[in-house]
Amino acid sequence: MNYFKFEVIAKSKKSRARVGRIFTPHGIINTPNFVPVATNGTLKLIDSITTSNIGVELMFCNTYHLMVHPGTETVRQAGGLHKFINRPHPIITDSGGFQVFSLAYGTVKEELKSKGIKKHTEAVVKISEEGVLFRSYKDGSKIMLTPETSIQAQKDLGADIIIPFDELPPYHIDQSKLQKSLDRTHRWEERSLKQHLKDKNNQAIYAVVHGGIDKNLRKKSCEFLTNLPFDGYAIGGSIGKNRSEMLELINYTMPMLPEDKPNHLLGIGDLESIDACVRLGIDTFDSSHPTRCARHGQIFTSEGTVKILQNKYKLKFEPLDADCICYTCQNYTSAYIHHLFKAREMTGLALASIHNTHYMIKLMSNYRNLILNEVI
Amino acid sequence: MNYFKFEVIAKSKKSRARVGRIFTPHGIINTPNFVPVATNGTLKLIDSITTSNIGVELMFCNTYHLMVHPGTETVRQAGGLHKFINRPHPIITDSGGFQVFSLAYGTVKEELKSKGIKKHTEAVVKISEEGVLFRSYKDGSKIMLTPETSIQAQKDLGADIIIPFDELPPYHIDQSKLQKSLDRTHRWEERSLKQHLKDKNNQAIYAVVHGGIDKNLRKKSCEFLTNLPFDGYAIGGSIGKNRSEMLELINYTMPMLPEDKPNHLLGIGDLESIDACVRLGIDTFDSSHPTRCARHGQIFTSEGTVKILQNKYKLKFEPLDADCICYTCQNYTSAYIHHLFKAREMTGLALASIHNTHYMIKLMSNYRNLILNEVI
Repeated sequence: MNYFKFEVIAKSKKSRARVGRIFTPHGIINTPNFVPVATNGTLKLIDSITTSNIGVELMFCNTYHLMVHPGTETVRQAGGLHKFINRPHPIITDSGGFQVFSLAYGTVKEELKSKGIKKHTEAVVKISEEGVLFRSYKDGSKIMLTPETSIQAQKDLGADIIIPFDELPPYHIDQSKLQKSLDRTHRWEERSLKQHLKDKNNQAIYAVVHGGIDKNLRKKSCEFLTNLPFDGYAIGGSIGKNRSEMLELINYTMPMLPEDKPNHLLGIGDLESIDACVRLGIDTFDSSHPTRCARHGQIFTSEGTVKILQNKYKLKFEPLDADCICYTCQNYTSAYIHHLFKAREMTGLALASIHNTHYMIKLMSNYRNLILNEVI
Repeated sequence: MNYFKFEVIAKSKKSRARVGRIFTPHGIINTPNFVPVATNGTLKLIDSITTSNIGVELMFCNTYHLMVHPGTETVRQAGGLHKFINRPHPIITDSGGFQVFSLAYGTVKEELKSKGIKKHTEAVVKISEEGVLFRSYKDGSKIMLTPETSIQAQKDLGADIIIPFDELPPYHIDQSKLQKSLDRTHRWEERSLKQHLKDKNNQAIYAVVHGGIDKNLRKKSCEFLTNLPFDGYAIGGSIGKNRSEMLELINYTMPMLPEDKPNHLLGIGDLESIDACVRLGIDTFDSSHPTRCARHGQIFTSEGTVKILQNKYKLKFEPLDADCICYTCQNYTSAYIHHLFKAREMTGLALASIHNTHYMIKLMSNYRNLILNEVI
């Protein structure tokens, strides 16, 4: 039985953009699409049912956080993540690698803000060929994250798409260390795949292409990983210190990925990057950017991003976006949302989060139409 | 045209409990009922539409907070509070007196916790026969709250039920000062009524009975206020340092209020007090207690109040309350809510707030049935 299938419906003649459909046991994901991040099994301030009602087709949950709490064994006992959080639609989980190496090295973003490479924090006890031993920030207990335990955790969670365990090296790293990190990541991904294939559990697994900003290593990574029977390919690791470096790298990488398999760009979700990357052929994007923007009062509208705390919204008795049919815009005015933000009412943050998430879903639907209509 | 009407449907033979209906321009309020507090024009973490869906028949908004932001003139321009917050059902506003005197003297609750009577804080510039001059905590601008400006603010807001401007004296106050405060409150309430009657604006006005814990003064207050054409009677001021003192005072006061008009107990909403006060004939109760409890993980259930953060809920894959049909219980388990609280996700607080508010609405409906069926 084909529990996972990908089909390309249309390819642009003007770019590498494409429209496709990913079939999963919990439904279809139309691509290109946006994948909001529900770190702990909920979007920030939006419950699962509301998330479904917004039209979110794929949700991203973090294995690391769910291992720390409530523990993947608890989720397994609940009948899996879909049942635990009450989401009947597709879910993707990551491996925990990104979070655990962020604990060790700091994030690439922090690093690029000149905070330098962090030393191992006390949270990370040991990194070895076997994997990473770290301490839970909740109760201090030690947790071993290896390719095998990460995949087992993701089996417990039961997401439709899972991700192999990988290393996230710092941005500033010399060539030989990056090469060594890549080789280890490849060994880890292969071990992850092997573990996955022991019991597919109706799940698909996407490889994560690494190699930092070194084109030769990116090429090597694509070659290595596309020779293994992964169901899709994610682009991960350090992908550049700014958007142009990132776009160049993605432009270079995309032709090396198989066209008949879905791809995913990890952790990128700002509007400008999505606009460029859809044209480069990216199928799905995960990011917490839209909901984080919402909580800071940055509202996505058809006329650009607006700052709802500005005084000019005090008397704007119209929806956040005249063109929007989301729950927030159907029911409330900009003036009211402005007031809720001024009064520091979390209700305002929730309503803004619903709006921005809906905006992303509508935006991606528009991209699909633009591709189908040969506009882009 | 009768824009406001009250009818008693049933009276208990066992107690002073009664079932009634308050007719307002925005719908009927069945009594006894619970009135959740939406300080800034929203319940904490629950938007207006969801509040309506829960079945909240009357919502309490604070004039003081709405004066400070967004300003009642803004709300007037929006078409009134119902339109501004999108609530088609009844709303009651207070006068701002309680908040402004809490700034000046501290709350009675703080005082009774032995923090003593506060000196005037810098927020309150001057208290005189005219009213209170205070500084906005938002922008430092001076705002004059008098019987006339309070009523005018409440005309701008346009709630179905409004409350006259009163003084909230400290709990520990000597007899002569309490007497003077009561006399001034009566003068202020009469000025408020006069201002209201200039333009009823389809609103009803409830007097606030004062007198602290002095029975003679309470009696005097009832006599004075019931001789004025108020539409209903609220019990306010310091009503005792504990529940038994409060119940004795309410028991003493109730027979002095007209039976053909609705009454309201200000600021009391804990389950034990409601149970006792329904039997003493109270029609409506406002309180932020249930939503505040929810945010602290205290969940009201048919088996008592439970603490959702306790470990025993980690694996309880059942609703918060087996008997509950609220949105939260229909969609999520205790284990998931427990997890959201542990992970400090605001979604958990929102879902708990929905549950507790629904619990109160159902509880009051049950009380009405118990009275109608002559059980209490």
